[in-house]
Amino acid sequence: MQVAFTPAELIPIVGATGTRGATSAAITGLASLENAVPGDLAFLGNAKYRSQVAMTRASVVLLPKDFDGAPSDNQLYLLVDNPSVALAQVCARIEQKLWPKPSPGIHASAVIGAGAQVAATATIGPLCVIEAGAVVGERTHLQANVFVGQNAKIGDDCWLMPGVCLSAECILQNRVRLHAGVVVGSDGFGYEFVAGRHEKVPQVGNVLIEDDVEIGANSTLDRARFSRTVIGTGTKIDNLVQIAHNVIVGKHCILCAQVGISGSAVLEDYVILGGQAGVAGHITVGKGAKSGGRAGITSDVEPGKFVNGYPAIPYMLERRLQVLQRRLPELFKRVDSLEGK
Amino acid sequence: MQVAFTPAELIPIVGATGTRGATSAAITGLASLENAVPGDLAFLGNAKYRSQVAMTRASVVLLPKDFDGAPSDNQLYLLVDNPSVALAQVCARIEQKLWPKPSPGIHASAVIGAGAQVAATATIGPLCVIEAGAVVGERTHLQANVFVGQNAKIGDDCWLMPGVCLSAECILQNRVRLHAGVVVGSDGFGYEFVAGRHEKVPQVGNVLIEDDVEIGANSTLDRARFSRTVIGTGTKIDNLVQIAHNVIVGKHCILCAQVGISGSAVLEDYVILGGQAGVAGHITVGKGAKSGGRAGITSDVEPGKFVNGYPAIPYMLERRLQVLQRRLPELFKRVDSLEGK
Amino acid sequence: MQVAFTPAELIPIVGATGTRGATSAAITGLASLENAVPGDLAFLGNAKYRSQVAMTRASVVLLPKDFDGAPSDNQLYLLVDNPSVALAQVCARIEQKLWPKPSPGIHASAVIGAGAQVAATATIGPLCVIEAGAVVGERTHLQANVFVGQNAKIGDDCWLMPGVCLSAECILQNRVRLHAGVVVGSDGFGYEFVAGRHEKVPQVGNVLIEDDVEIGANSTLDRARFSRTVIGTGTKIDNLVQIAHNVIVGKHCILCAQVGISGSAVLEDYVILGGQAGVAGHITVGKGAKSGGRAGITSDVEPGKFVNGYPAIPYMLERRLQVLQRRLPELFKRVDSLEGK
Repeated sequence: MQVAFTPAELIPIVGATGTRGATSAAITGLASLENAVPGDLAFLGNAKYRSQVAMTRASVVLLPKDFDGAPSDNQLYLLVDNPSVALAQVCARIEQKLWPKPSPGIHASAVIGAGAQVAATATIGPLCVIEAGAVVGERTHLQANVFVGQNAKIGDDCWLMPGVCLSAECILQNRVRLHAGVVVGSDGFGYEFVAGRHEKVPQVGNVLIEDDVEIGANSTLDRARFSRTVIGTGTKIDNLVQIAHNVIVGKHCILCAQVGISGSAVLEDYVILGGQAGVAGHITVGKGAKSGGRAGITSDVEPGKFVNGYPAIPYMLERRLQVLQRRLPELFKRVDSLEGK
Repeated sequence: MQVAFTPAELIPIVGATGTRGATSAAITGLASLENAVPGDLAFLGNAKYRSQVAMTRASVVLLPKDFDGAPSDNQLYLLVDNPSVALAQVCARIEQKLWPKPSPGIHASAVIGAGAQVAATATIGPLCVIEAGAVVGERTHLQANVFVGQNAKIGDDCWLMPGVCLSAECILQNRVRLHAGVVVGSDGFGYEFVAGRHEKVPQVGNVLIEDDVEIGANSTLDRARFSRTVIGTGTKIDNLVQIAHNVIVGKHCILCAQVGISGSAVLEDYVILGGQAGVAGHITVGKGAKSGGRAGITSDVEPGKFVNGYPAIPYMLERRLQVLQRRLPELFKRVDSLEGK
Repeated sequence: MQVAFTPAELIPIVGATGTRGATSAAITGLASLENAVPGDLAFLGNAKYRSQVAMTRASVVLLPKDFDGAPSDNQLYLLVDNPSVALAQVCARIEQKLWPKPSPGIHASAVIGAGAQVAATATIGPLCVIEAGAVVGERTHLQANVFVGQNAKIGDDCWLMPGVCLSAECILQNRVRLHAGVVVGSDGFGYEFVAGRHEKVPQVGNVLIEDDVEIGANSTLDRARFSRTVIGTGTKIDNLVQIAHNVIVGKHCILCAQVGISGSAVLEDYVILGGQAGVAGHITVGKGAKSGGRAGITSDVEPGKFVNGYPAIPYMLERRLQVLQRRLPELFKRVDSLEGK
């Protein structure tokens, strides 16, 4: 990043309530206390790293107001209510530089089908394709090489990054962010076995992605057989996640990378699944339930439960079984001994 | 979907042999008996839902001829030989609207290399690239942003969706359907470790995909080191599946989402692998063998066997071991007790 | 492949030190001794296949100098120091035909932003997008539909295949090869849970990919929260691999297909991870450590160790536990018997 803040610029950004020391350095990077070099901004985000503050080489350090200690030479302490929040404010400024608001308009190289409706405030980047009947809302940004199929609908303030495919008839509500390579609306995986061949079952439903959803790079979401595959408001999905047809994901869920959800499964609101977890078809994971990484959930999970392992069972039981499995060599010896061997 | 059928239009589509009741509603959606609202078509696909028929709010219901019962007010029953088949016929009509046959021709924005041969009946959508020497067959459809490398060959009636990459020299036979983001012909993952570095082993084979194969979004298929990686006729592959170099997948196999097949493995015909399963390199999975989801197959599987777990073992044995593992706490206590603890 | 070598052309390519027999066939394919047909080149890469040499139908066979035996009619033996190396030399020649060096220049359909710097020797293929401030080095090849974000930097002799997305501010050093659909610089997956919603933590770092790295199709690499996600020199990554934010991968590592590395994990140099393995966040896998396929590494691994299973434990221990788990039915019976049941 081409970051450059003077200490004087940082004070209002972080809302510093006090300062100690001074530095002549311009801030050109962010780093942890341990890794910082002169020119960096560091922060004390967790009290357990308190002892690292005295040693850090950062030029500016964000510290809680009650921090006790004095800066080194050519070092500035900025005292704030919450150093993590203060850092986020700096990052938000950097983000504006990293991703400047694009100018509205349709790039000359984009291909816009008959009857597509693109809001005047939207930005359609180079080499995008918008098919007939599609709708693109206010301030929505299609970055480059984005495909929007016929009659697909995109709400306001969405951001579709390079190479995204939003297939025909699928719907994005507002403030949806799709990272590069996401595919929304591929066919559900459904076949009937007839006379020695797998005959395709037409997949004629669509995908509905509600407000404030973010989906990571190269994830795939299948259209419903009929009706809808749904991702609820505020849900966040990481990279390389598979959502099969007719899945219903509730609101404010978290699906970590490489998770797979089988057809017609239901995740209620606030479900959290660790990386590489899998959910079998036609089951329900209750509200607020949680799984560890790699859990394989093969039957309904009650609301609020924390499960792990494959097949997934209550987390504490799974940990206990792991410990006992490690003790199997000992157990076999004990049984040998009981048998007089 | 912008579906709209009058009841009169539906009768011949589903081949109704009788009707009961009548409705003034136009049909604008499909739904299950339980979720249907007025304007929907529902169906009794499984006898166990028979009791839901009386309660459904669907305007039209597909029912078996021998169904006993009377429709509600403003509701039409259509009696058919097989409600599931009848529904599929409706879906096929909707599919034609969802994916209308595109007009033949090459979009002005496509980039066609020297000596590429594109059939006059083929459709090359916007922003596709076809390199020199490639061949595209009759009625084949490249939707948008599709890349076809040099000397690649595509047969008749194929459909390559947005962002597909068919790399140089690779071959698709007829009626192959590649969903968005599929990569065919990436390099196999082969290196020799020489003097502290991994030196690339050139991968100069190709990929052959036979008739009637369908491959899901963002799946990847590597070219052979030399010779061919092969996907046999009628095989169906779901999203985010990895096929390594020199793999041979037989005819009419089913590979669910996120499966990974390691180099030089052989799947014989009619193999079925559950989601997130993995197959080790250089092994053979026999004809008609089957695995559960997440199975990790590390050695040859005999034809017709059903395996599960990691390392994969016969399905029933794996289930039994799972039960016994859950009973380990009890077993430890019993051994404690035998030891007089 | 359209391969065609005369026997006379092959002799210098493989550095043959002697020949036996002769063939009139042109060489149009490579195959194993067992599968070869007339017109093929085969080789004895492993002494255990020595008995297959007499039976092979290959027209030309690469053999070690000390090989004892005579060719069939119309068959040529080429005697070389190392048949595998000799074969690699033939493959390298084929590779040059498969991937001819493209002519330098920028395709007319590419979209180049203001102030982007493209070396005169670079090749920018059709429908690529290079945003403002990006830099493309000498002889680097962007094949087609490649996206390069603002201020991204690409060194010399890199190859970005169709559909690659290199996001803003990310850096590729020299001789980096990214297969089709790779995404470099998607946002790290970071949220704060505030008032019932997951609020995005801005991800303003970048990704640094050092010299001689190769990354397989549709893999995804997230930008750091701040600072850098790093892939070290000479590391090779297979298809559909996920690298989360702030991960540091050392030099000369091997990550097989569908591996997932969680945020802030560190892999030291020469780490090897089998297919579908996972590494938890904030842990360190020591130099030269290795895991089997599907290992789930949840805590630090010491340098040089070989681990397996989930949670990953030393490989030999994991194998022993697997054997004992298979013997649980027997153990339960023995305990029944000790109890007098």
